[in-house]
Amino acid sequence: MRFKPVTSIQSKDMNAEILAVGSEMLTPDRVDTNSLFLTDQLNQIGVEVVAKHVVGDDRDRLATAMRLAMGASQFLLISGGLGPTEDDLTRDALAAALGRPLIFNAEISEGIEERFRRMKRVMPEINKRQAMVIEGAEILSNDRGTAPGQWIAGEDCTVMMLPGPPHELKLMFTRECMPRLRAMVPPLAIRTKVFRISGMSESDLDQTIAPIYKKYENPATTVLAHNGDLQVHLRARCTSESEAEALLAEVGDQIDAALGERIYSRNSDPLEVIIGRKLKATGATLAVAESATGGGLAERITSVPGSSEYFVGGFITYTRRMKTECVGVPEALLAAHGAVSKEVAEAMAAGARERAGVTWAVSITGNAGPTADGDEAPVGSVFIGIAGPEFLGSYHRIWPSSDRPRVRAFAAQMALDMLNRELGN
Amino acid sequence: MRFKPVTSIQSKDMNAEILAVGSEMLTPDRVDTNSLFLTDQLNQIGVEVVAKHVVGDDRDRLATAMRLAMGASQFLLISGGLGPTEDDLTRDALAAALGRPLIFNAEISEGIEERFRRMKRVMPEINKRQAMVIEGAEILSNDRGTAPGQWIAGEDCTVMMLPGPPHELKLMFTRECMPRLRAMVPPLAIRTKVFRISGMSESDLDQTIAPIYKKYENPATTVLAHNGDLQVHLRARCTSESEAEALLAEVGDQIDAALGERIYSRNSDPLEVIIGRKLKATGATLAVAESATGGGLAERITSVPGSSEYFVGGFITYTRRMKTECVGVPEALLAAHGAVSKEVAEAMAAGARERAGVTWAVSITGNAGPTADGDEAPVGSVFIGIAGPEFLGSYHRIWPSSDRPRVRAFAAQMALDMLNRELGN
Repeated sequence: MRFKPVTSIQSKDMNAEILAVGSEMLTPDRVDTNSLFLTDQLNQIGVEVVAKHVVGDDRDRLATAMRLAMGASQFLLISGGLGPTEDDLTRDALAAALGRPLIFNAEISEGIEERFRRMKRVMPEINKRQAMVIEGAEILSNDRGTAPGQWIAGEDCTVMMLPGPPHELKLMFTRECMPRLRAMVPPLAIRTKVFRISGMSESDLDQTIAPIYKKYENPATTVLAHNGDLQVHLRARCTSESEAEALLAEVGDQIDAALGERIYSRNSDPLEVIIGRKLKATGATLAVAESATGGGLAERITSVPGSSEYFVGGFITYTRRMKTECVGVPEALLAAHGAVSKEVAEAMAAGARERAGVTWAVSITGNAGPTADGDEAPVGSVFIGIAGPEFLGSYHRIWPSSDRPRVRAFAAQMALDMLNRELGN
Repeated sequence: MRFKPVTSIQSKDMNAEILAVGSEMLTPDRVDTNSLFLTDQLNQIGVEVVAKHVVGDDRDRLATAMRLAMGASQFLLISGGLGPTEDDLTRDALAAALGRPLIFNAEISEGIEERFRRMKRVMPEINKRQAMVIEGAEILSNDRGTAPGQWIAGEDCTVMMLPGPPHELKLMFTRECMPRLRAMVPPLAIRTKVFRISGMSESDLDQTIAPIYKKYENPATTVLAHNGDLQVHLRARCTSESEAEALLAEVGDQIDAALGERIYSRNSDPLEVIIGRKLKATGATLAVAESATGGGLAERITSVPGSSEYFVGGFITYTRRMKTECVGVPEALLAAHGAVSKEVAEAMAAGARERAGVTWAVSITGNAGPTADGDEAPVGSVFIGIAGPEFLGSYHRIWPSSDRPRVRAFAAQMALDMLNRELGN
């Protein structure tokens, strides 16, 4: 196979790459979450992440990856592989990639010994490996673990060696690296705007707003979708705050006009927070009656700190008997329409409202699958009931899915969306 | 900065690298989940993933990353960047990295046009980009989208170009790539074993079993922790099934002996599945009464398909009044001990058991934070109550955390763990 040499790489300025080290990060179960935190931090000061890598415990592969990243980007952030064992190769690999020696640092070694003494243990000999420092590196202190980090200012690239455990990495990066980085990068004003949208599909959303956001490189636009909840993130990077705000307003206003009332939040608040705020503002209270979602709706409502100010509780009426006894759904109604029906959804909501003595009640009944149940309601068929002051209504939707967790999550999202619409502005 | 050239790379055989393409994959909100699916599939046939990369929409960076991976590994799997726009650079970058031309394929173009016709639309001219094929590539058909994949058998490396949307990638990889890969790699027997553990910390678990698993490179051992639920995964790769089984048994038996009854599952079943199986086997039924977790416990129980066979329902008693009215907790008990107390936890469980007419009932009351509530129970303090035939008991635990979602998830996990222990074997 012939390789065509790649001769030009775009400007390195204000660009960063992130390298996670460790074979354990290459299993089907593990995700490198450190890079998400680091990306968020870097973006806040205007540094863009242009590539991320995960490389196993292999010295030569690591050194090659480091060498390439250092040649292509201004910053390289490395996480993990700083432990005391032979598998921990980050120090060795980076020394090789830089062509600099590792030097034993007695002070670090004493610090690690002291840490072991405080835990009434003797430092194993192998931990001395953690005191090996790359020539010319600055030490980054680690208050939450034994491995110190290292900051290496090269001519073309600044390299940060950080520990793998997230709570160690976060503290070290925030305390030790961010101040140094802020001093290196030109001050940039970064402003973000988030829209949250419900009641449309991701592809409909994208088709509606792509003609707007595609015209702009700045702000950068990201569309996120998760179980029926859609988000549009705009991020503007400018030299002044006013310029960034103006850009956000220019694009944001167009998106706002295109989506209209499908937008339920113009900051990052989720539905359960918005509903909570509306209920608190009017001194109203809320209860639920859930069948198909089995507690998932109440779980979302109570995920909000302080939700006990307006959320009274609820009834998980998984059987017909519980529907009758707990929220007073007449047996005849169940027999006539089946448990998955608009009549039962409305009776559940009305019953929950009365029994719990609240202003508003929301109910969910449906078949979340994966197989049709005795009621013979099709899989994915869900009814939402809403009872409020002078209001009783229901909504029906069939999701073309036998994916139980997905149907349940979509149903809870729809219930919150419907309640939010009824609560008004 | 001087670079020391890296001269030796370990054997490429049976090694793969994965490259996800797209600047949108480099935001703080996005994780490359395709690579987890691909890793699992590759591991099943004995191919190890030695590195993963995410690179933005930059032709030169992409080509460099591809070139390096092709030189270092036998397989390169690329996902994304196959769309019709100018940002979709995977085809161009790979052609450059391989030094092969792109050739227009009329058949593919007609297929895409036909796809548009079926949707009553006319194919935009830019979609013709999706019909550009690398010289010598085999086409991988895409039943779920417009972009076909490509399979390029090079001398040193086999490259797969796959679409980014997970549902397109999964079907294409399973149908088109796996059969070709199976024909290329020597048959290996891969056997896995999973232990699930509750009631100890991740570091205690690792300290207990590391002396065992560290002795073995094969099987490979991974320890996973998520909200109080711990898993140990063993994976043996051998030339014969019997050898793989023997290795798993050798290591698995030692881990089993070291952990004893802390293991609740010797396959991958979670607590809610194991509890469901035990309840069904004896024809027993279950209900819950939840305060702090607000429905999260019932949500987990009902996540199991068929849980309606034993789960009757529950009461989300978020206020004192709901505790009294729904599950009959005496007002005097609440006044004397506070809502977060062992007395109230037991009364909630006993009341739920009676009102729902079930064999077993589990209750949770606690303060999930982030701030202490009116009851002045400390944040992180949780009581679990269990009521069963001739049994009434409670458990208390304080988590040193004001992280509301974490406290709630830990509380639900502990409630299931305690119930599982009471249900016996």
